[in-house]
Amino acid sequence: MAIVPICNLSGIGAGGGTGGATARAFAKLGYSIALIARGTDSLNSLEKELQNSGAEATSFPIPSYEHTSIKSAFESIRIRYASPQYSIRAALYNAGHGVWKPFLDITPEDVKIITETNVEGSFAFAHEVLTDFQNNEIDSANGKRGILIFTGATASIRGNITTSAFAAGKFALRALSQSLAKEFGKENIHVAHAIIDGGISTPLSRSRRNNPEWEQNEDVRLSPEAIASSYVYLANQERSAWTWELDLRPAHEKW
Amino acid sequence: MAIVPICNLSGIGAGGGTGGATARAFAKLGYSIALIARGTDSLNSLEKELQNSGAEATSFPIPSYEHTSIKSAFESIRIRYASPQYSIRAALYNAGHGVWKPFLDITPEDVKIITETNVEGSFAFAHEVLTDFQNNEIDSANGKRGILIFTGATASIRGNITTSAFAAGKFALRALSQSLAKEFGKENIHVAHAIIDGGISTPLSRSRRNNPEWEQNEDVRLSPEAIASSYVYLANQERSAWTWELDLRPAHEKW
Amino acid sequence: MAIVPICNLSGIGAGGGTGGATARAFAKLGYSIALIARGTDSLNSLEKELQNSGAEATSFPIPSYEHTSIKSAFESIRIRYASPQYSIRAALYNAGHGVWKPFLDITPEDVKIITETNVEGSFAFAHEVLTDFQNNEIDSANGKRGILIFTGATASIRGNITTSAFAAGKFALRALSQSLAKEFGKENIHVAHAIIDGGISTPLSRSRRNNPEWEQNEDVRLSPEAIASSYVYLANQERSAWTWELDLRPAHEKW
Amino acid sequence: MAIVPICNLSGIGAGGGTGGATARAFAKLGYSIALIARGTDSLNSLEKELQNSGAEATSFPIPSYEHTSIKSAFESIRIRYASPQYSIRAALYNAGHGVWKPFLDITPEDVKIITETNVEGSFAFAHEVLTDFQNNEIDSANGKRGILIFTGATASIRGNITTSAFAAGKFALRALSQSLAKEFGKENIHVAHAIIDGGISTPLSRSRRNNPEWEQNEDVRLSPEAIASSYVYLANQERSAWTWELDLRPAHEKW
Repeated sequence: MAIVPICNLSGIGAGGGTGGATARAFAKLGYSIALIARGTDSLNSLEKELQNSGAEATSFPIPSYEHTSIKSAFESIRIRYASPQYSIRAALYNAGHGVWKPFLDITPEDVKIITETNVEGSFAFAHEVLTDFQNNEIDSANGKRGILIFTGATASIRGNITTSAFAAGKFALRALSQSLAKEFGKENIHVAHAIIDGGISTPLSRSRRNNPEWEQNEDVRLSPEAIASSYVYLANQERSAWTWELDLRPAHEKW
Repeated sequence: MAIVPICNLSGIGAGGGTGGATARAFAKLGYSIALIARGTDSLNSLEKELQNSGAEATSFPIPSYEHTSIKSAFESIRIRYASPQYSIRAALYNAGHGVWKPFLDITPEDVKIITETNVEGSFAFAHEVLTDFQNNEIDSANGKRGILIFTGATASIRGNITTSAFAAGKFALRALSQSLAKEFGKENIHVAHAIIDGGISTPLSRSRRNNPEWEQNEDVRLSPEAIASSYVYLANQERSAWTWELDLRPAHEKW
Repeated sequence: MAIVPICNLSGIGAGGGTGGATARAFAKLGYSIALIARGTDSLNSLEKELQNSGAEATSFPIPSYEHTSIKSAFESIRIRYASPQYSIRAALYNAGHGVWKPFLDITPEDVKIITETNVEGSFAFAHEVLTDFQNNEIDSANGKRGILIFTGATASIRGNITTSAFAAGKFALRALSQSLAKEFGKENIHVAHAIIDGGISTPLSRSRRNNPEWEQNEDVRLSPEAIASSYVYLANQERSAWTWELDLRPAHEKW
Repeated sequence: MAIVPICNLSGIGAGGGTGGATARAFAKLGYSIALIARGTDSLNSLEKELQNSGAEATSFPIPSYEHTSIKSAFESIRIRYASPQYSIRAALYNAGHGVWKPFLDITPEDVKIITETNVEGSFAFAHEVLTDFQNNEIDSANGKRGILIFTGATASIRGNITTSAFAAGKFALRALSQSLAKEFGKENIHVAHAIIDGGISTPLSRSRRNNPEWEQNEDVRLSPEAIASSYVYLANQERSAWTWELDLRPAHEKW
């Protein structure tokens, strides 16, 4: 049996975002889901929803994305799944925290949260996941010991006005994912990076926009389910043709 | 009913390359296949193989990748599929012609063939395909009027010693694909570009290398079937999350 | 003594563009100037202006950017400067021909001119220049046998709506320049590429825009002299720190 | 009068690196130099050398690259240069701290130092510099209120094995520089980023390599003076043609 730890930076919300959709998509494939996020309430709500659908899911709330918190969550995961022995086979680091401000308005706290979520937390998460992957057998179906997916954004490849902090974090995360893809590919560990280039329809973004037209028009915004479906595709790619990076955007997106 | 015209630059060979594999993959999904390539014999052989497997396939041999040849092939395709009316729904431009030489050894003929296959031919092919796509209804399953896929290479994003001509062609093809993705996305036409970053196991590459170890080790070379499977994935991506560009490489590739 | 052949794709105009400014800048440093362009009248006018300023300059009009025309111009240059012996030390390929059209309006002739200027002509020009550079001694001041500079544009790194043909040409030119920089650096030949990211104030662009405010505001448009000054900087870079690519844009440019 | 604050992450050493060379180059142009680094001894040594050469230079030692340290250094700079009033006109953030390790050997302390130098420190440094720049008049010679230069590396644009931490930091720094270039260009503030793609000959690198051949061959390594000379060039670029990013590498570098 295999677990998918999903680290969701902005809290799992009502489970309506990319983290929740990915949890559901992998649960349907029979994976157990370890939910790592801040915010106990929403975590529990998604946990219950997954369990009600017949999936195995457990919440691992964390107080912050400091490396000690991430490490501690993985220790809990390992205890939870020790007997019978499960192994981690797929993992998603879904860094959703955004800061959009003119540079001179950015505070040291903004910089701290951006680096904590995109650098400190991602390094700690990758460390735990990759250490476990190395102990896995290669899955004969796809040639993998495991897959680690990072969620990026337009700001992963282009700095812009009001994105100095956000882009710094996202560029860093992309660098990490590329370095890991190169370093661990030869051990049959697949590391991938998705550039989400557009607005995602989540409960939060829908309430912020309050624009039913945007919400209903699938040509202009991403759906979390479509992103999750791409992550499943990446997880299934066979060893002879792995993707490090793919971009995802709605059909009508201007870019 | 829908057709996939597959334009295969280096000839369809014994059908053992990316063009052949993509033809088989889309034929299995029920598409009719229009094979466009130089070399009547190998075209006929793949055509027969596809027909024997129950698929509908027709060869459209061309003398060159000049725009008049491409245009003429599409006129034949339109006549062949006029009654009952078929429409083109997916198309692959698979530009396999490579030139690897020190710059000063590159001849005007090398430059001509590189530009003919990567620029003149691709522009003509895209022109025919996109014109037809615009007349299609949007497919409710994926929000597309059609998908046009281009095959790129490592040289699409990095010039190097001995690749001055090859990279010039591949950079140009990538520029075309990006421009078209941006221009036609808003008409629900999906244009994608795959960066094939590694050696593909084809009859030709296997005979050149004569290295059974390489041939049998799926961790070190791409299989045409895995590439074709990625193209099917792209064709099925739903409108809210389309990929313009994905890279594909074997698990152990050094990059 | 050294010559700078300047190949200027859109004709040298009244000498008010990048080609003319670069000619003047290098002439001031004592170089002889070989002007290669279509359009005899404007060539002669710049030739005279340079001669009147005390420089040595000769026009080499060409009928097209086909490789035979370029080759023939260099044969004339070699005869002209055979005795006393001059050597080519710096060269500029200034590909100014632009096509901005919706894709379906692009004609085979547009594709032909774009590939002729950006691929066929540039390969031929580079072939002639690099062959000559290889015979030069290394200049002890900067460690070079010569420098070959290519002028690029925003479309060199980003395809966009209406730029499918232009970007295809410019991407190809960039690939060539990068390949050559890598291949010939070890022979102490410097190849560089400038990304001109903004409108240049030339007689042609000024008459087209007819916007004196734009013309007079140096924060919003490039001046040919500033570009030429960057080219002189590149030519003077010493061997321990050469630039392949630099971008140039006005202070206020939105990008 | 104008000051150049130079923030040098790995300590100013004996002044033999990029920070020291840039200090000398700008001092020669008449700028006052504010040296910000860890390590009082080496700072004092460079300060004295600059003073002995007739330049005005002051050391501002800092205990770390935390934002409070950087902010505090700038407060000291402002007091030091309050009367007569100086203004900051050019600034260099020279982030030299490197970590090259297999990913699983990277410690939380490595991650912390990388983010502190490349993110926390750079954001704080840029904040101080840009705030001051906004109060400057535009220099009529080059159209600038000031220039802020960041030193990058190969790892700024490519993650690789053993560079996961280093590349994460350098990608982040590059994102910051690009965002700032776009945000502040319209205020006539020039932000630039140099990609140093190769080994620099510094006292430290020379003692590590202990390879006189490498040291003496200017074709294979960068000299700090050549880098500094590029920074002077950037500082002098006039408003109509500013560079955000240039790469610098030795003539023979393989890349």
